[in-house]
This record gives sequence, structure tokens and C-alpha cells, in this order.
Amino acid sequence: MSQPENEKNPVFGWFGPAAGAAIFRIIKDFGPLSRAEIVRRTGLSKSTVSLHAEKLLKMGLVAEDQSQRNGLGRKGLALRFAAEAGLIIAVDLGATGVEVGLCDLEARIIACRSESLSVLAGPQPVMERIFALIDGLLASYRDGPRKLFGIGMGLPGPVEFGSGLPVSPPIMPGWHRYPVRQALESRYGCPAYIDNDVNVMACGERHSGLGREAENFIFVKIGTGIGAGIFCDGKLYRGTQGCAGDIGHVGVDTLDTPCPCGNKGCLESVAAGPAIARMAREAAANGASELLSQRLREAGALTAADVGDLADHGDLACVEMIQQSGRLIGQVLAKLVNFFNPSLIIIGGGVANLGGRFLAAIREQIYQRSLPLATRDLAIKRSRLRERAGMIGAAAMALEEIFSHGKVMAMVVQEGKKGPASD
Amino acid sequence: MSQPENEKNPVFGWFGPAAGAAIFRIIKDFGPLSRAEIVRRTGLSKSTVSLHAEKLLKMGLVAEDQSQRNGLGRKGLALRFAAEAGLIIAVDLGATGVEVGLCDLEARIIACRSESLSVLAGPQPVMERIFALIDGLLASYRDGPRKLFGIGMGLPGPVEFGSGLPVSPPIMPGWHRYPVRQALESRYGCPAYIDNDVNVMACGERHSGLGREAENFIFVKIGTGIGAGIFCDGKLYRGTQGCAGDIGHVGVDTLDTPCPCGNKGCLESVAAGPAIARMAREAAANGASELLSQRLREAGALTAADVGDLADHGDLACVEMIQQSGRLIGQVLAKLVNFFNPSLIIIGGGVANLGGRFLAAIREQIYQRSLPLATRDLAIKRSRLRERAGMIGAAAMALEEIFSHGKVMAMVVQEGKKGPASD
Repeated sequence: MSQPENEKNPVFGWFGPAAGAAIFRIIKDFGPLSRAEIVRRTGLSKSTVSLHAEKLLKMGLVAEDQSQRNGLGRKGLALRFAAEAGLIIAVDLGATGVEVGLCDLEARIIACRSESLSVLAGPQPVMERIFALIDGLLASYRDGPRKLFGIGMGLPGPVEFGSGLPVSPPIMPGWHRYPVRQALESRYGCPAYIDNDVNVMACGERHSGLGREAENFIFVKIGTGIGAGIFCDGKLYRGTQGCAGDIGHVGVDTLDTPCPCGNKGCLESVAAGPAIARMAREAAANGASELLSQRLREAGALTAADVGDLADHGDLACVEMIQQSGRLIGQVLAKLVNFFNPSLIIIGGGVANLGGRFLAAIREQIYQRSLPLATRDLAIKRSRLRERAGMIGAAAMALEEIFSHGKVMAMVVQEGKKGPASD
Repeated sequence: MSQPENEKNPVFGWFGPAAGAAIFRIIKDFGPLSRAEIVRRTGLSKSTVSLHAEKLLKMGLVAEDQSQRNGLGRKGLALRFAAEAGLIIAVDLGATGVEVGLCDLEARIIACRSESLSVLAGPQPVMERIFALIDGLLASYRDGPRKLFGIGMGLPGPVEFGSGLPVSPPIMPGWHRYPVRQALESRYGCPAYIDNDVNVMACGERHSGLGREAENFIFVKIGTGIGAGIFCDGKLYRGTQGCAGDIGHVGVDTLDTPCPCGNKGCLESVAAGPAIARMAREAAANGASELLSQRLREAGALTAADVGDLADHGDLACVEMIQQSGRLIGQVLAKLVNFFNPSLIIIGGGVANLGGRFLAAIREQIYQRSLPLATRDLAIKRSRLRERAGMIGAAAMALEEIFSHGKVMAMVVQEGKKGPASD
């Protein structure tokens, strides 16, 4: 149908697919919408909207909203984004485990599987395990017509986003420049997008967490390490080398604890999970906390989670450890708030489970040390997606790329090339 | 000419102006270009390019490049952006003086005038002086056909960019929410854009300074205060309240010098011009520097410039003051480098005149304290535009807004409405 139109009007060859992509975007973001509403919102002509609506229906990207049948016939039906028509694979690889999910095109999880493993085993065995999990999910949940649109994956180390290659990831020996993206793309025949875990979690928060309403926010993950994902004017900001947000090695000037990176007093070395566990061992050894000594005897080791647990049981040494960690993190974030002026800071990662005292200490420092103008409307909240941020984010990041204006235009062009013969 | 085309093809109504704006952008950024080259670069049809080229010529936004006459007749002439066809007024207001410039549409300064004044005099008298300077320039340099496209202005305090209102500017009492934008717009009948001085200087660096090649950079102004302008993926980033880059009150944790803001050890209070002058007075008083004592006796006061001058004469106390200030600034910037991962940091403002030792101390701390990946390709340079950054930036900021895609589309629509009658 589109070819004769193309020939008649040479402008169409350039703007046609752009119109198709614009119509798709408006249906995806604001649908269900009737054709008449799309005409009103875009200023495009009825015939152009009709033409592209048919094309998008044929491509399976949109569907007619049968729930709104209004007696006006098929053309009166509202159009909605056909999120159920395709699949996305989301991979959330951590240092000691992996979670793989099958999602729809709105990043809603259909099914997921997880497994303990160590990234220290090296890329090949780990990728084999990931393949097995994906294969299992596809075998169980992929029904015939659902197209696999792409794969999103987060991993615990720096990634060159454009190439999908890990870059000297400190806790992933053997993974430097291992072709993760290519391995996934060639096995599953669809595009794959790889980024570090914190950026991916920030994408999750933007897509369906607290970041939905915030154009400028910082997602801070506090676990074994400390890192941040940055959204800037509504878009993930990766920085020049892709290492923006690497705040784990920002120095706390008053402290000189050595850090494996070579500097002293790095935030990570004094405030992340292992630092809290270290303080707990010291308090157990020097008798500062009887409860910690007892827990150590029982369990043989102490973690940040133990500190949180015993703080809830009223152990003052544990309360102090949590507050100290929170205050140090807050001190660093206060400087970033002055620089970046976000409207929201989201605290996530395992150590965020330490709860209210931890968040209060972070807040106290930020409100005390940042400029009043910068904190006037600043919210500092705990992640609501929690453990799901990584998986939802991996899917959301892939969807953001797959349904970018340019890529949708290319799909529309591709559909147009099929020509009337395929009608 | 355009009206019949519009009626024949309803798509054109929406995409026509967008095509016009796209053609203008490509001529502005890559011209001179022949019509044939524009067809090749845009994929638009010959007739569309021709139509819009005529329209842009009529609007005076582009001109035929007579220097390239090639024997192919008028239609073979390359088109270039007609930067000389219009005027921009640039206002660079500082605490103790103002500079006003008349620029062409490439932010090149045609003429400028400056005057000492104090912003403490309050908005009305200061704006009257600015009006007088602008009026003088327009009377002397505006020839008939040159249209005044707009006004750009930087001032030394926080500004709500959307409304053009200063917001509680600490060194500008009486200016809070004074309608600077509206005052300029109603007097000169053209759009005006107001921002804080540091953002404006960063725009200058992006337009014709070191920032031309850098998508992600931080411009740091060090003078009476310390502030930063942030370019993020090629665009000025203003933050949620418009106060992004306010690094003067980032705390240096090891110091507890009180700051007027209420906190202690703020970067500005320990490393900006007044802090260096304070150190100089102390050294003159306690005999640490004979040269400073002598200079104080001669001049009656000491400034950061004296410290720079005497350091060049080999005074070790002065050298140490400069290095200390540079190191403190470098310590704060090192944290921001980890967070923001820029490819360039530009050091500007009066204190940057302290020269090589100052820059070396900043660099030393950044390279020592930031992550190797973040500094791998990081350049740290002194502003090349120097005192001109503010004026060029004010013009560049206004031009960025005036020639945004949306605004050019609106101009094309406006021109279209004149219809065949005006041909």
C-alpha cells in the first residue's frame, strides 16, 4: 500500500517512516488512542495516520483495543501498544549469582530463573550457565508468534556500552573485553545491550520505580561496593569513558583507610558492606558488643546484615556502625547534590536493607551539608524495586534502545520494503 | 509558492516546516553547501530543498555564497548561514562592572562597551546603565536591514532560566525575582535569555573555546567565588532548580574555616580569591613573606593577583598559597571526575590568571585522586577565551535558543503564512 504513495510524494520517503515512528511513540506513551485522537495530537492527516496505523498493526507493534469497542466499527477502535506481542530477555549478573527473566515489551516479568554461581569462574562457564537458563525459559514460555526483540544484561563491572565489552572489571578476572554482547547476539539472533549493574538498576527505577517522575536523579547502590547511576534530563548519562557514577572511590578526606585501588579513605573502603562487617568483627573482638561476639561464635562470621539485625535488637555498637556508614555516604552525596542538583536520590543495594537508621544518617548529612536551594525539593528514598531493579532495568534498557525513534523508523522502512506483494 | 503545495499534500503541513528547519540546520552547521549537496545529505527531494532554500533566502537566514560562483548559474551557488544578517546583544554583568557587546549570528563580537558599576546599586539603576550602553551600540552599529534577533545575558547569581528571574543572589541584594528578562524584552522587542555567569561562560567555551570538541565537560570559574558550568552529552545541564554546578560550597572535609553560608570548610571560603588574599595578609603580618609585607605597605591592600605576581618573583610563601588553593580545588574536582567522567575540565575566572603553578596543583590532585579510567583521556586546561568567555557565551546561549529546531520551524511557518501575496 505504501509504495505508490512513496512514488507520488518524494518527501514521504524521508518523512514517512518518521511519521510512522512518531505515531508509534504516541500510542506507546499515551495509548490506547483512537485514530481520530492521534490525528488531533500529531497534526498529521487522517490518511497518513490510517496508513501508518495499518502498517504498525501488520508489524504487530500495536493492537486494536477490543475492550473499548464502541459501535463505530473497526476504524473506531483505539490502538494500544502490543506489549504482549514480543519478548525481551533480561539478565542480572551479580558477583555470586545470576537471575534471568523473560519479559514482555513493557519490561513486565513473565517468568524468571536464578542460580548461584561465581563470576570468578570466568566468562565461558558463566555464559554457558546463562545460556542454559535462557534456553529453559524460552522452551517453557515462548509461544509461536512472539518475537524475541532483544536482550538486556547488567554485570558487576565497567562496560563499554557501545561495544558491550567489560573493561578491566575488578571483581571479574578473565572478563576483560570478553565479547558478552556478541555471544548473546549470535546465539539468539537479536540485539543485545550490556551495561554495568548500577546503570541498569537506574534504568529499572526510571522505567517502573521511583525515577518515573524524576528527570534528574541519582541511583546509589550500596552493597559489596558503592556505585551510582545518573539520569540527566530524562536520559541515562554514561560519561565519556562510560564510567560516570563511579563514586565508590571518591575520597572521604578525613579518613585514611587504605583501599585496594591504591588511594586512601575511598568511600567504598569505609562505608560499604565489607567495611561494616570489618567494624563488626572489631567490635566482637574488643568486647564493644556482646551480641556481636555471641553472633560470631554461633555463625563463625559476621556480615553487614548481622549488624542490621542486632541494631534492631538494640545493640548500640551496631547502631553506631550503621550511622557512621550512612553519614560517610551522605557526606559524599552532599557534594554531588551541590554539583548535580538532582530532584531525587534513590538508595538501593543490599546494604540499603539496614533500614531506617541508615537512610536517616544519609539524609542528615545531605540536608546539613548541601546548599538549601539544591535540597529545597530533593527527595531521598529507598528503592521500591529492591532486588527486582536489576532485572526490570535490564529489560527496560534494552527496550529503550530497541524502540528508539531511529530504530522504529528503520523497522517501518523495512516493513515498507516488503511492498504490496507481501500484503 | 508554498501554499498550493501545502493544500495538495496534507502531510506537508506538519513536516514541511520541519524540513525547512532541518535544511537550515545543515546549512548552518556544515555550509556553504550547494542545493545538490543538501539533497544528498538529507535524502529530501530536489524540489523540497529548492522550495525551502528559496524560503530561507527570503527570510534572510541563509545567503548565496558569491565567492564560489562556478558557472552553473544561480541555482548552482552554495548556500551559507547569513551570520551577518542579524544582531545579538550580549550582556556580561559582573559584581563590579558590565560589558555589553553587539554580535553577529555566529556570536562574533562587532563592537563592545564596558563600564564599572556595582550590582549593589540595585536592579533599576544597573539596568538603566545597561540600557544606555545597548542604546549607544545600536545607534552606532545597527544598519537598516539588520534585524535584532535577541539578547543573552549572564549575571553573578542563581537564575531561574525559564522565567529569567534571579533567585536570592547572595551578592546582589535587591535583585531577587527582579524581572530582568521582561525588562530587556519589552524595551527591545526581541526575546531575551538570562542565566548565571558560569553557565554563560561554559556556553562560550562550547561555542568557540576549548569545549567545541568536548561533549562532556566542566567549566570551572575561580574568582571571588567558585562555580561550575556543566555540559552533558553536548548540552548545558542546569539541574532541577537550575543550581547545578554550585561547587563553591562543597565542603573540604579536612578544613573548618567558617563560610558565610553557615557551613565550614566550603571550597570557596578556603580556595577562592578572597581566601588567597586573606592568606597573603596573614603572611604579610606574621613576617612569613617580606615581599608581601612590602607590597602591603606600598599598596595598602593585598589581592590574589599580588600573590601571583610575587610568586613569579620567587616568593616561596606566595608559591605555597597558590599551590594550596589549587590542591584544594583539585581535591573537590577529583571527586566530580569520578562521578561525572568528563573528557575536559576548563579552568577560567580571574584566579586562573595565577598561571602554571595553580593549574599544576589542580592537575596533580585530580590525577592522583581520580580513578585511572576516568582520567585516561581527561584534559585539564585553562580557558582560552578568558575575559571574553562571558560575552561570547551570552550571545551563544541566546543563539542556541533562537535557532533551536522548534523556533526555526515556527519562523518557517510564520514565513509560510505570509503566503503568495507577499512574494
